[in-house]
Amino acid sequence: MAISDKFSKRAPLMQTAVIRKILAQANAPDFIHFTVGKPTPHLFPYDLTYQQTGHIIEKYGGDAFQYSPSIGLASIRGWLADRMPPATTETTLMVAGSQQAIDLCGKLFVDPGDKVAMSSPTYPSSTGALKVYGAEFIGVDCDEDGPIPSALEHAFKQAPKLFYCNPNFANPTGVTMSLERRNLLVALAQQYDVPILEDDPYGQIRFEGESLPSLYELAPDHVIFVGSFSKVIAPGFRLGWLMAAEPVFTKLMIAKQAADLQCGTYAQTLVYEMLQTGFFEEHLKTITAYYKNQRDVMLASMETHFPAEVKFTKPKGGMFIWCELPEACDTAEILQQAMAEKVAFMPGQRFHPDSDPTNFIRFSFTMADADQIEEGIARLGRLFKQVLR
Amino acid sequence: MAISDKFSKRAPLMQTAVIRKILAQANAPDFIHFTVGKPTPHLFPYDLTYQQTGHIIEKYGGDAFQYSPSIGLASIRGWLADRMPPATTETTLMVAGSQQAIDLCGKLFVDPGDKVAMSSPTYPSSTGALKVYGAEFIGVDCDEDGPIPSALEHAFKQAPKLFYCNPNFANPTGVTMSLERRNLLVALAQQYDVPILEDDPYGQIRFEGESLPSLYELAPDHVIFVGSFSKVIAPGFRLGWLMAAEPVFTKLMIAKQAADLQCGTYAQTLVYEMLQTGFFEEHLKTITAYYKNQRDVMLASMETHFPAEVKFTKPKGGMFIWCELPEACDTAEILQQAMAEKVAFMPGQRFHPDSDPTNFIRFSFTMADADQIEEGIARLGRLFKQVLR
Repeated sequence: MAISDKFSKRAPLMQTAVIRKILAQANAPDFIHFTVGKPTPHLFPYDLTYQQTGHIIEKYGGDAFQYSPSIGLASIRGWLADRMPPATTETTLMVAGSQQAIDLCGKLFVDPGDKVAMSSPTYPSSTGALKVYGAEFIGVDCDEDGPIPSALEHAFKQAPKLFYCNPNFANPTGVTMSLERRNLLVALAQQYDVPILEDDPYGQIRFEGESLPSLYELAPDHVIFVGSFSKVIAPGFRLGWLMAAEPVFTKLMIAKQAADLQCGTYAQTLVYEMLQTGFFEEHLKTITAYYKNQRDVMLASMETHFPAEVKFTKPKGGMFIWCELPEACDTAEILQQAMAEKVAFMPGQRFHPDSDPTNFIRFSFTMADADQIEEGIARLGRLFKQVLR
Repeated sequence: MAISDKFSKRAPLMQTAVIRKILAQANAPDFIHFTVGKPTPHLFPYDLTYQQTGHIIEKYGGDAFQYSPSIGLASIRGWLADRMPPATTETTLMVAGSQQAIDLCGKLFVDPGDKVAMSSPTYPSSTGALKVYGAEFIGVDCDEDGPIPSALEHAFKQAPKLFYCNPNFANPTGVTMSLERRNLLVALAQQYDVPILEDDPYGQIRFEGESLPSLYELAPDHVIFVGSFSKVIAPGFRLGWLMAAEPVFTKLMIAKQAADLQCGTYAQTLVYEMLQTGFFEEHLKTITAYYKNQRDVMLASMETHFPAEVKFTKPKGGMFIWCELPEACDTAEILQQAMAEKVAFMPGQRFHPDSDPTNFIRFSFTMADADQIEEGIARLGRLFKQVLR
């Protein structure tokens, strides 16, 4: 007998994605990557990090290196709460990236066999985290304005424990929920008492149009808002946050404490002092302008090179474009051919919570530079035309 | 109806400790703290952190700020594995402090109602993390050599999913498991196929005597070893690691990915380059000498000031001394009186996994300086004499 015989019932639900193994081969330096939503290294705050390191060591001494409260440092929580009423310092919890917020919500809400509703398609690591707690998923189909009302109501009638969505520039579709849909969604959440897990890592990277109110602003008692510095400062600091009303908030804080005691004191102190310099507004403008240009180049290249049968979304922000090929296509197979051409993308296979269509692709426009985007999309255009012939 | 009606069955198991609220009042600057195992701020590597920041930004550029693999950076894993055969880079996983390793093991092994055996008394946050998964605890009584063989076998016959222990300078007792007990423990674990969760945050802080082999070294197929930089470099970086054999290792890595994607790339890179300077061996000697002096002062003060009815352990390393008062005493009540004297300690109430004696205290000798230790123990000696009169 081996100790694996002692595994819990949830152990078989812990599986790695095959796609990761395939993509691990796409590591030659001349590969063009449209795969993951990594922020561009051109815009990480190198100098500011160095400057503020000296500053925090002088200002905080041991407090920057020591244990600190599970809830997070009051300073950085206050900064965040000020930017998002009705949140307060006391209703803001620091977490290790938005992924941890999803995991903690799974722990707090989901028992084996419970239903969880999700915008479909969705971020695969959200289903990955919740599945381990035994969630069964109801996919809610979306159009260009977000979740379709009838699909949402159909899902909410099944009493899901959570509804998960990215209202802004969703992963993987890039779609933004309209104000009308936001109002409808929170009204349905209130009517059916469904907690909304609003995961918003991309909301600050808006290329055009007006910012829309968060779901949390519209219905703070029914929404757990999740934000992150990963996409707008650097993922390597592992800092995100959540905002929620009581009694949800305190339970999530206790769950955070059991999970890993606290977020890094050093990273929180460093990022807070970086924010105190006032660099962030200008920095957001810079990264937004940079990614807008990347998106423009990618959309223009797709228009030029992709065959007419390939449809794609036109996101107003964020990092992703979602492509639909004719139904018979298998994009995981096409990826193998694309990799022979030294271009890699993310096949859409694991993005649907409760179905598995094979004809979608997620493109990230953050990592490749403009020339590479044109070249990579041109290569794929040729490949798609061959495949569709 | 509120969304708290959607909580999972494990939500009621998420509770804060009352003692935290009491101790939160002990925050005046002239308080003498024997409460928590915080490393002394005198010995954090301030200059080295600053120097290596410039170095890592120059050497790694964006790679220090970017996403990185869930398993952790190969560089730091290799450094750790080299110091602990039979571990290898491929069987070492970076985690957010040892607390996260406990949580991930709970997720992988424990279903509601499962038994978990633990050295008794034990680290309360280990029971806190495992309880949320529905663990029911079997306390294994210990003597000055560690878990008592008959108690261990009695526990293992109940087929626990895990056995949790700190073999070196245990929290809260300071006791170190003898080599004979280690051999017996792993033999029983093999006989009854019980996975051992060996949590060793203090093992490198040894004041005297020879290092003993880890349980993991003795039985790598039955042990999950957990280490941490929190006590020996700084808790604020949130870096620990675990070592385990397959198939346990891969499952824990997937669980880590679902929990928070990865440990901070920035902290891993910074700490790895700090280690590369070779400072660590000398640093360990410095902190060990410092804490040894603190322990010596505390033990001598206890000898001098505590009434004879108060017994205490004599740890050979680590951060804690464990005191036993006569059975009728309630140390949580005594704490209230001690706080009026501006001395705080940790009552032993939550340290026993399956019982709740009221007559124990955990003392940490890390935070107060030598003068404060003498003064604080003298005040407590007077108080204990009053109480016992």
